[in-house]
Formats: sequence, structure tokens, C-alpha cells
Amino acid sequence: MKHVTGKSINLALSVRGRSSLKAVGLEDEVIVRHAIPMYARLIHDRDGSRRPIPYGKSDQCIFSVGRRFLNEVLLSAAEKHSNVNIHFNHKLVTCDPETGSMTFERYPSKEITTAQADLIVGCDGAFSAVRRQMLKRPRFNYSQTYIPHGYMELTIPATPDGQFAMEVNYLHIWPRDSFMMIALPNQDKTYTVTLFMPYENFEDLITPEKLLDFFFENFPDAIPLIGKKNLIEDYFRLKPSPLISVKCNPYHVGDKTVIMGDAAHAMVPFYGQGMNAGFEDCLIFDELLERENFQLARVLPEFTLYRTPDAEAICDLAMYNYVEMRHLVNSKSFLLRKKCDKFLNLIFADSWIPLYTMVTFSKKRYHLCVKNKKWQDKVINQTIWAVGVSASVVGLSVFAKLLHNHPHWLEAALESLNKFKLSMPLFHN
Amino acid sequence: MKHVTGKSINLALSVRGRSSLKAVGLEDEVIVRHAIPMYARLIHDRDGSRRPIPYGKSDQCIFSVGRRFLNEVLLSAAEKHSNVNIHFNHKLVTCDPETGSMTFERYPSKEITTAQADLIVGCDGAFSAVRRQMLKRPRFNYSQTYIPHGYMELTIPATPDGQFAMEVNYLHIWPRDSFMMIALPNQDKTYTVTLFMPYENFEDLITPEKLLDFFFENFPDAIPLIGKKNLIEDYFRLKPSPLISVKCNPYHVGDKTVIMGDAAHAMVPFYGQGMNAGFEDCLIFDELLERENFQLARVLPEFTLYRTPDAEAICDLAMYNYVEMRHLVNSKSFLLRKKCDKFLNLIFADSWIPLYTMVTFSKKRYHLCVKNKKWQDKVINQTIWAVGVSASVVGLSVFAKLLHNHPHWLEAALESLNKFKLSMPLFHN
Repeated sequence: MKHVTGKSINLALSVRGRSSLKAVGLEDEVIVRHAIPMYARLIHDRDGSRRPIPYGKSDQCIFSVGRRFLNEVLLSAAEKHSNVNIHFNHKLVTCDPETGSMTFERYPSKEITTAQADLIVGCDGAFSAVRRQMLKRPRFNYSQTYIPHGYMELTIPATPDGQFAMEVNYLHIWPRDSFMMIALPNQDKTYTVTLFMPYENFEDLITPEKLLDFFFENFPDAIPLIGKKNLIEDYFRLKPSPLISVKCNPYHVGDKTVIMGDAAHAMVPFYGQGMNAGFEDCLIFDELLERENFQLARVLPEFTLYRTPDAEAICDLAMYNYVEMRHLVNSKSFLLRKKCDKFLNLIFADSWIPLYTMVTFSKKRYHLCVKNKKWQDKVINQTIWAVGVSASVVGLSVFAKLLHNHPHWLEAALESLNKFKLSMPLFHN
Repeated sequence: MKHVTGKSINLALSVRGRSSLKAVGLEDEVIVRHAIPMYARLIHDRDGSRRPIPYGKSDQCIFSVGRRFLNEVLLSAAEKHSNVNIHFNHKLVTCDPETGSMTFERYPSKEITTAQADLIVGCDGAFSAVRRQMLKRPRFNYSQTYIPHGYMELTIPATPDGQFAMEVNYLHIWPRDSFMMIALPNQDKTYTVTLFMPYENFEDLITPEKLLDFFFENFPDAIPLIGKKNLIEDYFRLKPSPLISVKCNPYHVGDKTVIMGDAAHAMVPFYGQGMNAGFEDCLIFDELLERENFQLARVLPEFTLYRTPDAEAICDLAMYNYVEMRHLVNSKSFLLRKKCDKFLNLIFADSWIPLYTMVTFSKKRYHLCVKNKKWQDKVINQTIWAVGVSASVVGLSVFAKLLHNHPHWLEAALESLNKFKLSMPLFHN
């Protein structure tokens, strides 16, 4: 199976994806045999120093899995079912989502063939051909947003003695505010390195000298790992790929067509939930099939109704993390909030769970994770307010006692309250 | 010229549209001869009582203009130019935005013809065929949103003696929270009535009895004006039309293609700016042509850069007004803010201009109108804060003096401050 340009080589698997694999008996094969656990982000600073930021508790990790391997496992499992037929090299040209008729072009013969389905399940990715047909229908809500950043995949090879060139059980991050680089470990002891950067920056680096200068300035510790020669060769051979976020509604047409995964909700990759959300779609669809006794006319609208708020929430979170991840190194408020969350989580283990943990290590519906986070923000905000007001009142009363004969005490008090007010927006949402 | 279903019969013309007409010498012909000024909204309550809410100062008005008439005026003016050729009944099937080639299907022969343009200017509406081709291009941002409401156009005929059946110089509104009806006067002494309502409500009214019950409950004064027979006939003959909001970016491809008007930024009709924004596009494009000396390779990207923030701002404002207009009757905070704005505008005539006035009666860039409104909100908010805190501090100091020997004064003071805090969100944005 050839690697398709524009699709990342490795993927981050977490609880939602694992649950779905478990439901079809594949969790152990994927996790135990072929996945590399990552327990923390490892932040690479400009001076080469590194520091971990754990993903959750000490036993909580996400897994780096190869896309190609995962595809093969899933296809092999599907093949074992006698009622599954797999047709490679058939490109969907068009379909009628209302009747279930489909037209394919075969590769390489360009022969046109048609097929008729009881149900079209369009899992055909961010540029879905099924969705393109749905877009023409009345009252279909749709948005596609390209972020200004593109990405390019580079490689850190194994060391000469066949070992990983960096600490293995981490997701390595070089956050540099307006751009960043990450690296995930592969089974073959290499790392896939992904450089995320505004297109303009990619376009600026037009000579090997400029490229190397840029790397020396921003990712000096990565140059010997990637290798100067490889870096230059790969960079000028490859083109940056765009990053798209897609939302739409509904996900279905009548009882004949439904879209899932990236076709329904492509997201930017910064929360590591794209594949997990897609796999969770399958699990939820399966549960709805059971519950509604396989009545597609009921299952499909239910799927849209149930899944759209969650998919929108995770698309938004991924977009939000697009900013946060790049700023990880400088963000004191991020680290402060992390400490605050950790402390509150120690006291209220069941009710105060950090957002990242809810999203990554639980199956709580995405939109409820967001709602819970907003509640947490409100609680923190109000606590600060209450503490601040109490302090001000105590301060004021002392002030008033000391200065009650002084004509200017009111102005002074107002000023001190105003200062307190200015310090509040930090925790506003 | 036939009326096309799904396009409203009359349009609201305000300053931006007028300026553009003036630039091509058509303002007087449209305004003086064929437009009906509307100086205020006239709110119809359920009990039949009516009250005006002026649009601005006593001499400020918007104009009701017929779509068909306006089309004819513009076409006739265009025809007078020897370098303009008008081809009716040519439907754009496809085009190549990069090369300027276009394919049309002629009506009714279905004959296919092609044409080659130096510049394609796609002014082909909310469902633009030019934009459909641009959507396929990399890094084109796009969103289409259908609101849950549809609309249906009904008619209030002239009285038997040929007069307007209601007060003429108003935009009549029947706001009913989850739905609403409006009426604009026409040249022929009729009113075009538009019922905006969620599709579900349209679908509920399946018998003449249900329809009449609904009107008796919600628009009793409109029944004799429309006429029971006409109401029933029209309602069951027509289908509600959808309401779409479209944003995209960029508006151009190279130096060959640009989209304008609804093709670039279709909006819901609740701010009465759709046509005005489209006409303003032309004016701005014309200014850029002059400024950049007709170098299309510079003009087109400039147009995208200049116009997208304004178009997005007015699309958002229109969506915001979708809620506000329906609630006009019940909204005390809306009327309070209107009074507040009027007062501040009296004192600071040049710097404190209500949002509606900036949008409708000035040519200030839409996104700057929104920015200015946010500044106003902040000023009001901070004033309330300052007044509230001063009051609290004075109250507290009295309180403290009276109760400084009492152990529970702190709790009481906190409670009073908390009450003040609860009253603040009213003016939050």
C-alpha cells in the first residue's frame, strides 16, 4: 500500500479509538503489538533543553500508530467476513444520495461502472465525493476552513546502531509561537517529524542556506537528528500540505446515505482526535442500529442529531489547540491552569477532570467535555471574584477607618478596586 | 420580466445603495420617481395596537423599491453603453476561473455555447455557479448556513378605492419571538407581506382552519387586510423559501475572476443590507480599478483583502438581527439601549452614533461599525461598573460605620456586592 501524500504517516490513538477497536476485537493486536505509548509531551526549547508535560496521570498515555499498519489490520479483519467485498481502485465519480446509486471510475482503465446500495456510508475523507453530492441539496449546512498553516513531514532516522535517536515514549514538540514542529515515534525506530508553519514561511525558505539558518535559529537540536542532507533533500522535494477543518449538517440523506469520519467532520490535527472521533462514529452508529432495530429511516436522523454537536465541539477544540500547542513553551497561564487543575482533581477526583483528560482518556461526549470546561472556568472565575471582593472589602474597611476624616479616601478606594478589576480578565473565557 | 420564486419582490434601499446609484447617475430616477420612504418600523402588537420605532433622526429613512423596476432601470442604463452586450437566457454551466473560459446553456434550445473573458465578474447570486468552481480550488474558505426559518410572501391589496390599506411610510413588523411577519409598501399601493417562520411551523399549518387559527392568534389585524380567501389561496399555493448565509474567501482567482454581491456574501435579510452591500461592492471595485490603474492582478487581491472583513461583519450583523427583530416587541433592553444611544448621540453627535445608524445611514466600513459598537458597549459597561462600585463603596462605608461592632457585617456586604454583580450582564456583549 502506497503512502498517499497529504495524509500523515502516524496517528495518535487514544481511549475513543481504542474502545472502537476493542468492540471489533482488534484492540490488543493494535495496541500490544504495534503501538508506541507516549506518556507526555516533551518540549524542546530553543537552547536544546527538554522538559516533559504529562498528558494525564502517570499511567495515562496516548499511542503512536502507523497509518499503513492500521489500514492493513482493519482491511484484513473486514475481509474475514463472507458478506464483505472489497473493490480497490474504484474512485467514486458521483452518486445519488437519495436513491443509493453510485458511479465509479476504475483505475487504471478509466472504465465506468455503476452500483446500487441499500445504504451508502461515505467514509471518504475530508474531500468526500459523497458529501460533494450532499452539498447540492437544499438546507445542507456546510463550512470548510483552511488555516494559514501548512504542514510537511520529515524524518529522524534510527541511530547507526538501530536505536531511537530521542527519548521514545514522548510526543516531541518544538513550540515556537507562530509555528511549531512535532515528532512521533514509529515501530522501525524512526520518528516522523511534522513541521507546521504558515505558507508564507514555507515560501520564504527558498534556498538550502535559508532553510538551514531557519533550523539553526529555531530547531538547532533537530538538525543533527534529521541530518542536514536529508533535511535539505526532503524539504525541497516535498510541498507543504494544507490543513482543513470541515463541519456540516445533516450527516444523512433519507435512509440511503450517511457520512462519517473526516467526510462529516474533518478537523485540524492539533488535538489528536481525528481518527478517534471517526472510529467513535462507527461505535455510535452501531449502537443506534441496535437500539433502533436496524430501521435506517430512524437510525440515520438519530445519528445526525446525536453526533453533530459532538463533532462540532471537537472540531472547535482542535482549532483552539492549534493556537495553544504553538504557545506551550511560553504560556505561563497554561501551566498555571494545569497545576490548578491537577490540585482540584486531587481533591475532587470525580467532578474536576481537566479538559484534555476528558477528551483523550474518557468517552464523555465531546460537547459535554466543553460544557464541563466552561463550568470549571466559571467556578475559578467566581472564586477569584469572591476572594478579590472579600480582600477589597477588608482592605477598604481598614482604609475607611484610617482615613475616614480624609476627604480623598473615596478616590483612592476606587482606584484600588479598579486595579483589582484589571487583573480579572486572565481567567475570563 | 418574470418574478423568480425565492427572490423577494421588494428591497430596502439605504445610503450605501443610494451612493452607488448616484455614482452612475441613477439615484434620482430610482429614489424620486419610484421609491417609497419608510421613516420607522411600525410594530403591530397582538392586540392590534401599533407603535413606531424610528430608524434614525426624523429625516432619516430607508426606501422600499421594487426588484423588477430596479432591474429594468439598471439594464436600461447598461444597454446605453455601446461596449455592453446583454445575453438573456444563457445559464452558466461551468467556467474555468483561472483562464476566463465559460460554458453556457441557452434557453430553451439547450444549445451549449462557450465564451472567453478577460475578467469574469460573478454576480450570480447566493447559489453562484462561478463560486461553485472556485470551491474546488485549494485553500478556498467557504461556509453556507441555512437558518431554521423559511419565508413566504403574501400580499395586502390596495383598498377598493385604490389606497394603501395601512400607514404607508413605515416598514410594518409583527414580531412574535420565534417567528415574525413584515410588510413593505409597493408603488401600486399594495404591500408585500413576508412571513418568516421555522419550517416546522409552516409544516404544521396543513389545513385552512389551522392557518386561520394561527393568524387569528398571532396576526389578527392582518387577516382583514390580506383577506381570508387570498391568505388561504396564497399560503397553500406557495412553498416557504429557505434563507441562506454565505461567506467565503478569497473573492478572486488570479487576475481573471472575481465574485461580488450575494455570490460573495449572501446574508439573511434582517438588516436590509443585502442589495446595499452588493451595490457598495461595485463602488469599491470601481475605486480600486482607478487607484490601481486598471491592473487587475493588483485590483482583484486588493478587493478580497479590503472587502472580506466588511462582508463578514454585515453577514454576522444580519444574523444577529434575525433574533433581535423577532423580539422587538418584548425587548425592554433594546428600547432602553435605543434611548440611551439617542441621549448620548445628542451630547456627542459625532462620536456616539447608534449601530443601526452607522450601518444604514453612513458609508463607514461595516467592520468598523461593529468595532465602534463594541467600544460603545465597553464604555457603557465600564460606566455602570464605576457607578455601581462608587455606590457600593459609599453604601459599604455607611454600613461599616453602622455595623463595625457587629460580627456579621462582612457577609451582608458581600451579598450586596454580589447582587450588584448579578445586575451587570445586561450590557455585556
